[in-house]
Amino acid sequence: MSRERALIEQLRALATHPAARELRDDAAVLVVGDRQLVLTHDLLVEGVHYLPGDPAADVAWKLVAVNLSDLAAKAATPLGVLLGFPLGDAAWDRAFVTGLGAALAAFGVPLLGGDTVAGRGARTLGLTAIGEARSAPARSGAQRGDLLYVTGSIGLAGLGLAVARGATDGPSDALAAYRRPRPRLAEGQALGSRAHAMMDVSDGLLIDAARMAEASGLACTIALDRVPIPPGMDPLAAVTAGDDYELLVAAPAGLTLSQPDLARLTPIGRFAAGAGLSLTHGGTPVPLPARLGYEHGAV
Amino acid sequence: MSRERALIEQLRALATHPAARELRDDAAVLVVGDRQLVLTHDLLVEGVHYLPGDPAADVAWKLVAVNLSDLAAKAATPLGVLLGFPLGDAAWDRAFVTGLGAALAAFGVPLLGGDTVAGRGARTLGLTAIGEARSAPARSGAQRGDLLYVTGSIGLAGLGLAVARGATDGPSDALAAYRRPRPRLAEGQALGSRAHAMMDVSDGLLIDAARMAEASGLACTIALDRVPIPPGMDPLAAVTAGDDYELLVAAPAGLTLSQPDLARLTPIGRFAAGAGLSLTHGGTPVPLPARLGYEHGAV
Repeated sequence: MSRERALIEQLRALATHPAARELRDDAAVLVVGDRQLVLTHDLLVEGVHYLPGDPAADVAWKLVAVNLSDLAAKAATPLGVLLGFPLGDAAWDRAFVTGLGAALAAFGVPLLGGDTVAGRGARTLGLTAIGEARSAPARSGAQRGDLLYVTGSIGLAGLGLAVARGATDGPSDALAAYRRPRPRLAEGQALGSRAHAMMDVSDGLLIDAARMAEASGLACTIALDRVPIPPGMDPLAAVTAGDDYELLVAAPAGLTLSQPDLARLTPIGRFAAGAGLSLTHGGTPVPLPARLGYEHGAV
Repeated sequence: MSRERALIEQLRALATHPAARELRDDAAVLVVGDRQLVLTHDLLVEGVHYLPGDPAADVAWKLVAVNLSDLAAKAATPLGVLLGFPLGDAAWDRAFVTGLGAALAAFGVPLLGGDTVAGRGARTLGLTAIGEARSAPARSGAQRGDLLYVTGSIGLAGLGLAVARGATDGPSDALAAYRRPRPRLAEGQALGSRAHAMMDVSDGLLIDAARMAEASGLACTIALDRVPIPPGMDPLAAVTAGDDYELLVAAPAGLTLSQPDLARLTPIGRFAAGAGLSLTHGGTPVPLPARLGYEHGAV
């Protein structure tokens, strides 16, 4: 057991309130009166979650986007955010707040509060996002026979990361997909009441689908050739890249997103009795890659 | 204008939602349905808000206490917390989570979620606390003729900081007051509906009273000889020391805390038309000290 996993187990022993969902979901879901609040707090660390050379405004955008993506995954409408910000280089800080404003305006979310402190060493940026949901599907609710659906397409942010590292050229929208992801808020809200399970794809399609299957106590098979990916991209590279912030949804066959301004929804797999993740391509079994995605820490 | 102040002004321009209270209060107060949610997010930085040698369990306790103190200041009942935790030394981390559990148990607050990440350099620990309040007095609500009250006593944590630094001996409870402050949750809830203004004393009695007066557009005079302080402590040292986490309350004369298990409540000053803070001792004006308290960053 890794040190981080051991610590999360220690934290889990404290998180016995049902709203904590055993720290196994994208967000906490707290009932207050007749309302369901959805609460998440994600950190970005310089050199871990973003490259030191990434523009400050893009880092701010991403900090907002990754947290709102957790709200999207619980079908929540955002109510506001609180920022935890260590001060550093003054120009970087100003550009960060400009990017924060752009992201909050783009998603229609108010800044409610937070804290600024003297920063030291690599930055650790924190954001808490609060939302409200009518139904907040857990990631553990997939049922036998459900299909696995994904919004949008998978892999473009992974290409963008390679571009940001200077490793390769890529399509012009790849860098934007990596640096300025757009959480699927409208899609999450539209799917919330019909999804048996829902979560966002932050660490890679395969690892996140495996987590949904494990949380639901089921096996899942994904048809690699059904996953929407950028033209010319290696399918295995796409489904093991992170930072897509698309939604994974478990629901009976026939689920659609009919509003024309929403992302397409594609069935890519199926849940069945058993355990574990398996892959097919053209109906033929394909071995799982050694690495299914990124393992970021998440309480 | 300091760099930090400039950045907070830039953030304030984004915080136009009424729940943000212009980032001038201890916490955000968000109306959801017929409920009032109180939300705060405070950071502790190693070497800034705690000493590198402070026991990890005490740092965890303090992180919980400073956030719950903000809830107390808005008369809120805590509903839960989210933790932002950068991993470091494994033994320190384990002791931190043990202290976290002790603090959450002491105050009856559940851990709902958060994030753990790979830490780098000095730690920045974050906590978001969510509470619910029937009335959430702003710090800007003091009225002309109101008295200024304080719960408990002021200055012991300042003695404790000196003890922790090895600078001096002190009473046996001083170190505990510094390392394991107890937010005045029950007092805040009991006072909420009767207080015109309320806030906690985190940076020093004088600086925080000056902030309440300024936010309320009034002058405030404090009778130094009325402030409850530890026996033998210099009154000016006590009222400029931080980390007390007592409550400051503006209300008409006659305010009392009658429940026997609550802290005493002492009238120590008065609000009047005008601006600024002034001090008296035995009825005679006393010059303000050059430093009124600590200026930590706070969005």
